[in-house]
Formats: sequence, structure tokens, C-alpha cells
Amino acid sequence: MSVAIVSGGIDSITLLHDLVKRLDVHPAVLTFIYGQKNAREIECARLHADLLGCHPHHVMDVSALKSLFATSALVDDAVAIPDSVDVQGDPQPSTYVPNRNMIFLALAVAYAESVGATDVYYGAQRQDSYSYWDTTPQFLGRLNHVYQLNPKTPVTIHAPFVHLSKADVLRRGLALEIDYGQTWSCYAGQDVACGRCPTCVERLAAFDAVGVADPLPYAEGS
Amino acid sequence: MSVAIVSGGIDSITLLHDLVKRLDVHPAVLTFIYGQKNAREIECARLHADLLGCHPHHVMDVSALKSLFATSALVDDAVAIPDSVDVQGDPQPSTYVPNRNMIFLALAVAYAESVGATDVYYGAQRQDSYSYWDTTPQFLGRLNHVYQLNPKTPVTIHAPFVHLSKADVLRRGLALEIDYGQTWSCYAGQDVACGRCPTCVERLAAFDAVGVADPLPYAEGS
Repeated sequence: MSVAIVSGGIDSITLLHDLVKRLDVHPAVLTFIYGQKNAREIECARLHADLLGCHPHHVMDVSALKSLFATSALVDDAVAIPDSVDVQGDPQPSTYVPNRNMIFLALAVAYAESVGATDVYYGAQRQDSYSYWDTTPQFLGRLNHVYQLNPKTPVTIHAPFVHLSKADVLRRGLALEIDYGQTWSCYAGQDVACGRCPTCVERLAAFDAVGVADPLPYAEGS
Repeated sequence: MSVAIVSGGIDSITLLHDLVKRLDVHPAVLTFIYGQKNAREIECARLHADLLGCHPHHVMDVSALKSLFATSALVDDAVAIPDSVDVQGDPQPSTYVPNRNMIFLALAVAYAESVGATDVYYGAQRQDSYSYWDTTPQFLGRLNHVYQLNPKTPVTIHAPFVHLSKADVLRRGLALEIDYGQTWSCYAGQDVACGRCPTCVERLAAFDAVGVADPLPYAEGS
């Protein structure tokens, strides 16, 4: 038995389809609510979990932890979402959420332990590591080294896309016929994607690299 | 700047006094509420933080995570607190809370990052490791190896008592004139300590080894 962390963005949705359709792995799905500015991601996660018959889909509300993340533009209304150009070369941009991956992976491992699962999957891909220390192969390797100490339920964390670019992930997902109109990446909390924040820019660049139009609508002038 | 995780039991209260009185370290204090059966621990943590002038004392309510811990006797009313004799030799007794230390340390590191602290202290001692994989020196070493990857705020976790027995911790605390009547260890949620659960038995054995009477009242016949 296994658990997949699915946010509702391109990477984790592609991961879920890849696990089910290509690897015949049918994980329980775990989605975190933590006061992120856009709740549409969560609806997308639910839709794909249902579509793929992945049960249970456990939505864990960790909004109580929001105060921890107060320094991040992703949850603090007082911190503006930066434009992509502002975070290039920054070793830790304001979109970094303090220790988020460690916390979410620790919660996912606890969930896995409580349901008897031995494997946790998450959708970190290569380009994430340009600015986030907690999405790298080294991070994953060292973290699994810790979890191997558990004598009863030594859970292993997998990030199958950790060596793929976002364009590679997108190519794989398009081959799996994923409807990317039902995914959400934008950091800003608007009805349509802003087209300017770091993940919008990354997402659009990936679609551009693959030569396919993003089915999501974007704000005019973006 | 530093952060100390303080539950209200002997180990973490002694740690806090040791940091302030002997090492001149004045940490912010972090206490977790997670649906444990006895809330008296939290009052004890608050009392000692005030006494030592450690501010802020941040009580983080992570009760929303209780469902994760449902397999543990510490939070699930349906799981009886075991007698000490029942957990001897069990590599993972029912008092084990799935991945709790990893989660709490991850939250503490996030808190540290958000307030600009570089060091996190917690009160794991040698005897904890007889049954919990996540209180050992190996666990700590491997975990710090992960956190060293953070390029901006590489937080280091310290467990200064990890090589001490509970009796050693108690000796140190008595020399620091700690009032152990204002600490709480019992797993059962009663007005007086039960004297039978694993931490009561450990606590009483430590007082016995040191040759001092525990100032806490215990249930008759325990």
C-alpha cells in the first residue's frame, strides 16, 4: 500500500496518473490545506483522485500551521506574490514556505504508518530545486536515511520525477492524456491564472517547450 | 536565537532550566497541543517558561493532526494506556505516536526559521530510545544531515540529554533546584498520576535511583 501527496498542480497530478496508468500503483491520496491563496488546487486534486479511483482521498487541514508560514508570500496576504523575474537567482525567494516539504512529508509518513503503507510518493521535479533546498535528490536521499531507522514501518519516500524537467513531466502527462485544464498552478488567488507569478511562468515555459497551448485561461496582458 | 520544545515532563523542564541557568541560553519555548490525554503538562510548561523568563512561549495547537495519531494509546480513548510491564521489549509499543518526533521537530524548525533562530533543543534522553526509534543519537545525526542542506537557515537540532539516563537528568535538575511537583509525566488523564503507565514507572524508578521522593501525589495502591 502507498500514499501520494497531490496538490492539484501539473507535477503531482501527472505523478498520480503515471502511478495508476503506467506503474499500476493505486495510492491513497493526501492533499494539504494550509491557507494557500488558491483553493482551486484542492478541487483539482479531488477531481483526479476520483477519476482514477484512488481512495481514500484524505484532505488534511493544517491551516492551524499557517502562522508558521507567515513569512511566505504563498500564505501571507501582507507579502506580495513576486513576479518570476524577482526570484531568479534568489537562493530562497519569498515563495519559499519554511520547512514545508519536511513537514508535509513527515505528516504523509505518519499517515502512511497509520494505514500500514510503506511508500510515499510526491511530485518534486528537477526545476523545483533551482531555489528550494527541500526538493533535491540529496534532500530525498538524506531523509530516507532517517526513515530507515524506523524498526517497524520504515517508510520510503519516492520522487519519481526528481530528475525530470517540468517540460518532461508535461510530455509524460500529455502522453497519458491528462486534461491540464483541470489543474491549477498560479500562486495568486484570482479567478484566472495571473501568468506572471513564478509557477505561472514555469508552467507557460513548459507548455512552450513542448509546443502545446496551455488549456487554462490567463489574465489579459500577462 | 534558539527554540526549545518543552512538554512539561521531567526531561524537557530540566532541559529548559539547564539551558537558562547553566548554559546562559534563553530560548523561545514551543509547546504542542495534540490531543494528549493530559493537558496538565501544558500548564507545567507555561509555569516554567514564565519562571525562567523565556519568551515567547508559543503553544501550537496541532490537534487537527490527531487523526494521524489515532493508532496511539496516548491520544486514542479506544486504546488503553498499557502498563509498563506490557511494553518491555516491544520494539514499538502502543504509546508510540506515528512519526511524532519528526513532525514536531519539523514544525519546530519551521518556527525557528520564521523567527530567525538557528538552534532547536529538545529533551530526548537515553532511555527513551529503548523503544522509540526517533529519540536516538543516530536519528538526530541523520536528521541534522538533512537540515544542513538548507542554504539560508540551516537549523541544528540539539538533544543535550541524549546520552543521559532519566536518573542522570533528574540529578542535574535537582542540583538546579527544580520543583518537580510542577512537572507532569503520567500518560493517563487523571487528577493524580496513575503510577502504573510506562512514564510513571520510569519517573518513579528515576526518583528511586536518585534516592529522593517524588513530590507528585500518586493514586493509592500504585
